[in-house]
Amino acid sequence: MSTMAWLNIMRGGRLSSLPLSNMLRPFATASSKSLVGLGKLNHVAIATPDLKKASEFYKNLGANVSEAVPQPAHGVYTVFVNLGNTKIELLHPYGDKSPIQGFLDKNKSGGMHHICIEVVDIKKAMDEVKARGIRCLSDKPSNGAHNKPVVFLHPKDCGGVLIELEQE
Amino acid sequence: MSTMAWLNIMRGGRLSSLPLSNMLRPFATASSKSLVGLGKLNHVAIATPDLKKASEFYKNLGANVSEAVPQPAHGVYTVFVNLGNTKIELLHPYGDKSPIQGFLDKNKSGGMHHICIEVVDIKKAMDEVKARGIRCLSDKPSNGAHNKPVVFLHPKDCGGVLIELEQE
Repeated sequence: MSTMAWLNIMRGGRLSSLPLSNMLRPFATASSKSLVGLGKLNHVAIATPDLKKASEFYKNLGANVSEAVPQPAHGVYTVFVNLGNTKIELLHPYGDKSPIQGFLDKNKSGGMHHICIEVVDIKKAMDEVKARGIRCLSDKPSNGAHNKPVVFLHPKDCGGVLIELEQE
Repeated sequence: MSTMAWLNIMRGGRLSSLPLSNMLRPFATASSKSLVGLGKLNHVAIATPDLKKASEFYKNLGANVSEAVPQPAHGVYTVFVNLGNTKIELLHPYGDKSPIQGFLDKNKSGGMHHICIEVVDIKKAMDEVKARGIRCLSDKPSNGAHNKPVVFLHPKDCGGVLIELEQE
């Protein structure tokens, strides 16, 4: 699945090839010893319909806020709000096929879109989560907004939360 | 407003005394110099319909996960997932009037509920956010799950995100 396609799940896309049983359970919890080794929270991503106002909002509350960066390959603009120990990633649609447009259509004011957690080895992590029955939203890691390999995990297997894994 | 009442906003509660104009804007962005001084991200809160499975999910991915703690005053059980630089707070309803029940009624599998950001002085922060037109969901700070003073900000003034401020 392409980098853009997987985020479409958040706008009601369907993975028709997936077994129905997977759709009905809130968590995948097979219990062998983990090799995933979740690390730090890299960022919390917040989708916003107004990037300028969202940036001002956090600036006005005293946070260190980056400039907006267009990410054509990902169909978003990103702004990072540095909170010292981690970041908020503000996301705004870029182009007319942005993967976050559907989320904003459903959440007019914006809202929390995903969390990103660091792992040491993205390929090992993908093997491990797959072995636990957690679906990855792409077959291979893609190059994320930080220019590091990333993969998204299916929110239906992660308690309703879209989780991005990023290689440290 | 009581500690429990404000979270009811997340299940579709209404603050009928609030001006309509506030309901229509995604951000409050008055621009005087900030005294709020947003600090670290204390936690990302995730509401879950199954606390045991949610805890196992993060444990199985290699995270350090606490035991469940009942918080009768807040109408929730909490579990903390330590990610090194910050925490995920898993929330599950406690009792039959839990403030997160409505959120789970709308989000059957669970999902991201709020983010908590640290501030040095909660009372100063409340004065400052109010001066910027951002509504606090209680008149005074309450005692949060970490036994520190906290206040929630209205998600309609914060780009659709429920933000908790916690005194460091």
